[in-house]
Amino acid sequence: MLLYDYFRSSAAYRVRIALALKGVPVERRFVHLLRDGGEQKQPAYLAKNPQGLVPALELDDGTVLTQSLAIIDYLEALQPEPRLIPADPIRAARARAAALAIACDAHPLGNLRVVSYLQQQLGQSERAVLDWRRHWASLGLEAVEALIRPAPFCFCVTPTIADVCLAPHVFYAERFGVSLDPYPNIRAVAAVCAEHPAFQAAHPAAQPDAAEAAAGP
Amino acid sequence: MLLYDYFRSSAAYRVRIALALKGVPVERRFVHLLRDGGEQKQPAYLAKNPQGLVPALELDDGTVLTQSLAIIDYLEALQPEPRLIPADPIRAARARAAALAIACDAHPLGNLRVVSYLQQQLGQSERAVLDWRRHWASLGLEAVEALIRPAPFCFCVTPTIADVCLAPHVFYAERFGVSLDPYPNIRAVAAVCAEHPAFQAAHPAAQPDAAEAAAGP
Repeated sequence: MLLYDYFRSSAAYRVRIALALKGVPVERRFVHLLRDGGEQKQPAYLAKNPQGLVPALELDDGTVLTQSLAIIDYLEALQPEPRLIPADPIRAARARAAALAIACDAHPLGNLRVVSYLQQQLGQSERAVLDWRRHWASLGLEAVEALIRPAPFCFCVTPTIADVCLAPHVFYAERFGVSLDPYPNIRAVAAVCAEHPAFQAAHPAAQPDAAEAAAGP
Repeated sequence: MLLYDYFRSSAAYRVRIALALKGVPVERRFVHLLRDGGEQKQPAYLAKNPQGLVPALELDDGTVLTQSLAIIDYLEALQPEPRLIPADPIRAARARAAALAIACDAHPLGNLRVVSYLQQQLGQSERAVLDWRRHWASLGLEAVEALIRPAPFCFCVTPTIADVCLAPHVFYAERFGVSLDPYPNIRAVAAVCAEHPAFQAAHPAAQPDAAEAAAGP
């Protein structure tokens, strides 16, 4: 399998964590979101993922899967252990809800193409864009703070899809200066994630393409 | 079970479709997103869903589930037939990806709270907000157009989670004047959905709270 990846993409980071937790090996191609006007918008990548977003997972038969949460559900079917979706339907729904509170309601607002629209179409200043990023990142943290019950991961003794989404969101929020002080549950989970080898291996700073980092999306 | 619902919410509309497809009966409470400054922001509702978003599904034991896609996965476990998530993992990933291309990358950008931020914090005009809505709605349609293979629903002879998300997105896009002309796959799916009793029963215009509609989010 081949993962189209970018070190700072929260969505790609989720998939890297899931792959590392499940011990599924992948090759990688790095899609630099800022180089040459965005490699994700170039025909070679659009042929893989017409949405022009990372990540994408290319299977050995050439099938390309997109959308981080759909890829994670696929990995869950491919390699059920360790489970990232609790077996109990109510616990599963809670873990998925925390994941979706980030993936639907927080993360997309800070996406490169949304920020570009604010700057280019709406003429917003750097300061206004930073406030925008912080506002939606904080609302995502508030939502998750109320949903999770650290044990010590968001809901269980082992990571679920909620942790897989939360760690990248915490990375994003801190990168843009959002304090975790108001969120004790999230601070507790972030601390155990930071000690976990799979989360460490998936961290943006540990990726080969991080070395090339410029200021970035 | 009790569904906290609002007729025009795309996310609530998805859950109504899933409930109707599965024939799961629910009571409903209507949470009017515009009345009295937004009933979703009032303490009575925040006690149910601290995120202040609809829908929420309250189970008979008082457990409250949030996030439309998490609720739909819960309903899939509760009442597996008819399946909304294909059994084959690759087909499931494709259906989920189309659903998420709407639920993550398109729908949140047009949410009431995002539009309010554009108007109030960023001082954007009605025209600029309409352009914003149309831009992200169109990108969502483009993404789905490239992913689906009508058969005659998005991927199968029966509706999946992709159709459950697409029909509300089409309703939203058309409401704000986005033409479906460039999207023949979506037009084909929208036509079969419009003829399906579960989609008809879930349509915003068929809801009891629609009668009270004012200009709306």
